[in-house]
Amino acid sequence: MRVAITSSDTQKFLKNSVFTIAEIASRSIINLLSNTRIEKYEIDGLIVSSNSTEPYLSNIISEMVGLTPRFSTKVENLCNSGTSAILLAYSLIYSRICKAVLVTGMEKRDSPGNKLVWDITRGLFDMPVHWASLFASNHFRKYGTNMEDLASISFKNHKYANNNPNAFFFERNFTFSEILDADLVSDPLKKYDCCYPCEGAASILLVSEELATKIEVPVWIKGIAQNNQGASFAAITTSLDRILSTRIAAREAFKQAEISPCNIDIAELHDAFTILELMAYEDIGFVNKGAGKMFIKEPSAIINVRGGLIGCGHPIGATGIDQTNEITLQLQGLAKQRQVEKLTTGLVHNMAAAGTSTTIIILQN
Amino acid sequence: MRVAITSSDTQKFLKNSVFTIAEIASRSIINLLSNTRIEKYEIDGLIVSSNSTEPYLSNIISEMVGLTPRFSTKVENLCNSGTSAILLAYSLIYSRICKAVLVTGMEKRDSPGNKLVWDITRGLFDMPVHWASLFASNHFRKYGTNMEDLASISFKNHKYANNNPNAFFFERNFTFSEILDADLVSDPLKKYDCCYPCEGAASILLVSEELATKIEVPVWIKGIAQNNQGASFAAITTSLDRILSTRIAAREAFKQAEISPCNIDIAELHDAFTILELMAYEDIGFVNKGAGKMFIKEPSAIINVRGGLIGCGHPIGATGIDQTNEITLQLQGLAKQRQVEKLTTGLVHNMAAAGTSTTIIILQN
Repeated sequence: MRVAITSSDTQKFLKNSVFTIAEIASRSIINLLSNTRIEKYEIDGLIVSSNSTEPYLSNIISEMVGLTPRFSTKVENLCNSGTSAILLAYSLIYSRICKAVLVTGMEKRDSPGNKLVWDITRGLFDMPVHWASLFASNHFRKYGTNMEDLASISFKNHKYANNNPNAFFFERNFTFSEILDADLVSDPLKKYDCCYPCEGAASILLVSEELATKIEVPVWIKGIAQNNQGASFAAITTSLDRILSTRIAAREAFKQAEISPCNIDIAELHDAFTILELMAYEDIGFVNKGAGKMFIKEPSAIINVRGGLIGCGHPIGATGIDQTNEITLQLQGLAKQRQVEKLTTGLVHNMAAAGTSTTIIILQN
Repeated sequence: MRVAITSSDTQKFLKNSVFTIAEIASRSIINLLSNTRIEKYEIDGLIVSSNSTEPYLSNIISEMVGLTPRFSTKVENLCNSGTSAILLAYSLIYSRICKAVLVTGMEKRDSPGNKLVWDITRGLFDMPVHWASLFASNHFRKYGTNMEDLASISFKNHKYANNNPNAFFFERNFTFSEILDADLVSDPLKKYDCCYPCEGAASILLVSEELATKIEVPVWIKGIAQNNQGASFAAITTSLDRILSTRIAAREAFKQAEISPCNIDIAELHDAFTILELMAYEDIGFVNKGAGKMFIKEPSAIINVRGGLIGCGHPIGATGIDQTNEITLQLQGLAKQRQVEKLTTGLVHNMAAAGTSTTIIILQN
């Protein structure tokens, strides 16, 4: 059994709207449904990805959009919620429990999830930027990475976001010095090294091989793997050098797809902070440990052409889904002004909480 | 691929303890792990079922109990959370993504989920007992069911709970007239027609056929199906006669297991209110529509020997898991003072929100 992605939708990421969490998801689903040959009655699974605390959201949304699926649930896995939902949808189809599973992820700006209150090991340094700044300081000290390297990642992603109308920072046209000279948030990370939590919704449709024949350009899931190393920063800091969950999940996904990092043409990496994109170059295996800054100058794959979390904003439950949407659109040749030529293989990298968990998805057309 | 249940654990259901939501789940998992031949390193999946709003609970719990699973997430599906998690665990094993998935469900008494705030169609009549009382009035009017019939369901379940040390109403020894003469809550439902929301935790371990060979008495999942009809009471009240999601899910599960209702020896039914157990007799197909009250007197299967939600209490995210635990223990012959003799086939029936969703699981030893 092969599992395909056939359709996707992303709603504009913004600061806040008057619509409820269920309404923004429903709008995204209705838009997806109006643009696919898969019929409503054929959709027998719905998985909702959100950090919202509203109960029974998946069934509320299914009623609002007029679905009566065989299976329906909400999942929450902090910043890794979106691809956790996609992995479950993959599993439901692969096991023939469902034939077509709609995954929708969304967040309001006030949804919880920006801070992991449970992790008291961090004391007063309890915001994500605090652990991210430790990763950055370590990389600076050990491998000679510097602020210009990180600023060039932020500059690249913001430049890409200028081409993405759904991005929060669409057409914001940052200059390099505007990014490099921004205020420090937690030394050495500055304002535009950090992503911006915002509102947003994204949906994606996974179907069985049989249903995929109805679609002109299906995209195939060739590898999908997750790894979990706990929840606290303490749990993963045996080494500040690497994100272990990313290394394990990537190795597993490459093994499933029977390819290696050099075969990746395009990737969406989880740049909640610029240092995380740089470390992902290394931990996924595009370059050796410590050589991340070289990859910025001579990349072997197009990274975060959507704009990344840095350029798009980060509606937590929607992010992993919109990352996957971007790779899907690119492989389908439907990415419009962002379309990259001659693509065969793409990769999605989605993480949570100091890299305590990672999902990797490898897609091919 | 066949999927087995090998081990289970239930912690005492109680009003409130000093422990956090993550602590009560961890205690249940540690107890399960100390009583199974499946090793910790073999457990590559963790699914947490809860209505708690604490984020990243599955990874928090995995760190607390020392697991680093390949896959981990929390699911929330109101009262149907527990069996939604079990269905996903089944899917992860069936699709060979995981080999051993631990499912843990838990609730503190103040977890949300007792009232679906979103469903404003109910006006001031917004508590679950309000829709349950409409189901009961309809059954009384149409099929001649009466208060004594409902009281005898409550009496039976409380009597069974006297044998279940984990039940909230363990050894409470209700008399029939104490139940029948209790205060009205919403006419015609009285105090002991309703379950009691409480704290509790339950865990269950699902494994692949290969790992199941390490276990003396595995129990096999022969059928597992869910159906969803929306979220609001309005969505399912085209008829007050029946719970449509239960009818569809049961039909599907029986088809998978290639058996019929007359083959069920023992069942755990979702008696959030007595009327729901009575309607489940009919909608699962033990008897024809309207004949529920006959089934009370001459049951073809042992129903809710655990004590049901009525006798055990209802820790929302744990309920579906503890229902499945009971059938597992009974089929393993490990149910101690509650053990029923000569069992082959058991059924679990778990619902949410006015019966808008139902999961049915059929187990055999």
